[in-house]
Amino acid sequence: MAELNLLTPQGFQAAGVACGIKTQAGAMDLGLLLADTPAAAAAVFTTNKVVAAPVVLGRETIQTGRLRAVVVNSGNANACTGEQGMADARTMARLAAEAVGASPGEVLVSSTGIIGRPLPMDRIPAGIAQAAGQLDRTPDAAEAFARAIMTTDTAMKASAAQADIGSARVTVAGVCKGAGMISPAMATMLAYLTTDARIGPAALRSALRAAADASFNTITVDGHTSTNDTAAVLASGAAGGPEIAEDTADFDRFASLLAGVCAELARKIVADGEGATRVVEVRVEGARTEAEAALAARAVANSPLVKCAVHGGDPNWGRTVSAVGYSGAAFDADKLRHWIGDELVFAGGMPTRYDLARCQEHMAGSRVLLRVDLGAGKAAYTCTTCDLSRDYVAINADYHT
Amino acid sequence: MAELNLLTPQGFQAAGVACGIKTQAGAMDLGLLLADTPAAAAAVFTTNKVVAAPVVLGRETIQTGRLRAVVVNSGNANACTGEQGMADARTMARLAAEAVGASPGEVLVSSTGIIGRPLPMDRIPAGIAQAAGQLDRTPDAAEAFARAIMTTDTAMKASAAQADIGSARVTVAGVCKGAGMISPAMATMLAYLTTDARIGPAALRSALRAAADASFNTITVDGHTSTNDTAAVLASGAAGGPEIAEDTADFDRFASLLAGVCAELARKIVADGEGATRVVEVRVEGARTEAEAALAARAVANSPLVKCAVHGGDPNWGRTVSAVGYSGAAFDADKLRHWIGDELVFAGGMPTRYDLARCQEHMAGSRVLLRVDLGAGKAAYTCTTCDLSRDYVAINADYHT
Repeated sequence: MAELNLLTPQGFQAAGVACGIKTQAGAMDLGLLLADTPAAAAAVFTTNKVVAAPVVLGRETIQTGRLRAVVVNSGNANACTGEQGMADARTMARLAAEAVGASPGEVLVSSTGIIGRPLPMDRIPAGIAQAAGQLDRTPDAAEAFARAIMTTDTAMKASAAQADIGSARVTVAGVCKGAGMISPAMATMLAYLTTDARIGPAALRSALRAAADASFNTITVDGHTSTNDTAAVLASGAAGGPEIAEDTADFDRFASLLAGVCAELARKIVADGEGATRVVEVRVEGARTEAEAALAARAVANSPLVKCAVHGGDPNWGRTVSAVGYSGAAFDADKLRHWIGDELVFAGGMPTRYDLARCQEHMAGSRVLLRVDLGAGKAAYTCTTCDLSRDYVAINADYHT
Repeated sequence: MAELNLLTPQGFQAAGVACGIKTQAGAMDLGLLLADTPAAAAAVFTTNKVVAAPVVLGRETIQTGRLRAVVVNSGNANACTGEQGMADARTMARLAAEAVGASPGEVLVSSTGIIGRPLPMDRIPAGIAQAAGQLDRTPDAAEAFARAIMTTDTAMKASAAQADIGSARVTVAGVCKGAGMISPAMATMLAYLTTDARIGPAALRSALRAAADASFNTITVDGHTSTNDTAAVLASGAAGGPEIAEDTADFDRFASLLAGVCAELARKIVADGEGATRVVEVRVEGARTEAEAALAARAVANSPLVKCAVHGGDPNWGRTVSAVGYSGAAFDADKLRHWIGDELVFAGGMPTRYDLARCQEHMAGSRVLLRVDLGAGKAAYTCTTCDLSRDYVAINADYHT
């Protein structure tokens, strides 16, 4: 079987081109994804109160639950660009719609890159026309789209999975970019998913929200939420079979498939975090509520002291335990237990007689598990992050606006 | 007039000695502060749920509102040390009390340094005896106490001020340590203040809480709250005059004096933050409530992207604006304004045509002001932090537990 890609689900075409938005000559910077017929669609966007123009527009567009196309440019985020930015986002939707024979309300627009500068609208029309002319169903076309949305990412990020749901073999595929910080802006995460599942917009939205909560919303590179974050899924229905309805076993299977693909994409973002040398999974168990487990996990995952310790391969249980301590989660310090990998290092309010060499060996690897049991309940939450290195500082301090 | 110091307020003696708790030979690591008669006293402690034994004990001790002595060791935090740690803290109080002729319940104990290791109780008794023998009222004795509480601090931190309150000339003086992270632990902030003001414990507590809220609680090096943070004030009453009662103009004068000293100590902690090259004041105005102004200011001050930009001297308004955007504070992005120094760089949802050279000149200095007006109300909050440098990562990644 050929490797699954964004265009494995039937009913989609894609393209990626270079049209001069990025300053590097020949760098791909405009992607177009087209559904043959109006696809059921759902999207989630950044919760930042400062949002880019395409996000403002996208929130309107997605209301219908149907999309024909997604047009994305990289190199310029069209954020903090005022009325002109909104007009430019609408122009991108109109141009893409005209090029593929859709209506502007069926086109989701995204932008990622530098913020506070107007889009180069002298170059984008030609880029959209060129991309429309190159639309294709090949793996190369899927890869071109994935590459065209990258900014400082060091690797293309894609994931796909298949399952039999009802009478149909359903594929869910996705690509994303992010976790490189884009000068002079902030982490910008974009993800686009395709599926051939036959599913309506409301059910698709439920599945996407759950998947995003369990994947993209559990990762952090530096706790800095972007102005442009967007994840969107388009369902062509080409796999056939009965429509997947909410509150059914088939829906659960589909949601699980989508969640798995989103989780892999999210892991790829963290692994490509700026300056990152290790991925860190922070698992908090035994909390009174999932919200409190999340508070504790996020406090650990966002602590620069914890991240520096992981970078240095140092099993510094004190930094993890104290971060949990100020997180706001309820617990009794004497009941808290902490493991590095599977080595118990803290219990009964004190460090155990742990095997230092074993901890150091675990932390020398590329994936580090910091596990905490609060001993206060049954809820759990896992957050994934990366370490904090001198390269992170170099990348983000040496750039000049 | 001689320079004011911790012992300028009448009624106090101090000492600092080296007793072998720190591994470096001859490093001072035990301080003792004595009030001639039981002083009105107040203290605030860390809000971390994982707290050191001396903090647990100190919360009990301070209930009476009276203290004769403070005994502090550096080099070992007596945190995460279980029952033995509690017993050791009580022993320190008893030994200090015996040495100065007080009762154990009149002695505040503090510890700072490495966590998770038992105190070296073979060395501390001799240290306390030695310190008691060296108690003095000289500036040198004040400095010895201040030096004995330092860990990785690169500078001694002291502040004092005087004012005429009622019929008395009142002095408030203080010393503190902190903002260097202590291996393998977390930022540990300790502050001790003396005053000769005649004031009762309840009024003193009110004044200290307000002062700590406006000073120590507004600074951040890395958002990581320690297990040992303590700030305590002792009032001897030696200045004379009528007792300073709450809800009077004299109380306001005293509270303001205390707040000024705490603010200077807090600034010194940030300026000595690990790897810090610049102090950053984040001032958020125009918020609906002070709590929302604080949310916004803290989000900016804790953003590693903002801190890296300041380190690089880059006027990166986008990182500040987007941090405010995810902070949880309510505002309309079109009404938000942002200044770097006194240069307006963001208004109306877009960057202004700001003077880049002027911004860069401001950011090249040792103090950087990031000012934000949310345009949503009248509340304000100022948070002080430092930049994030490669040295921060080096200090915190290269250490091994």
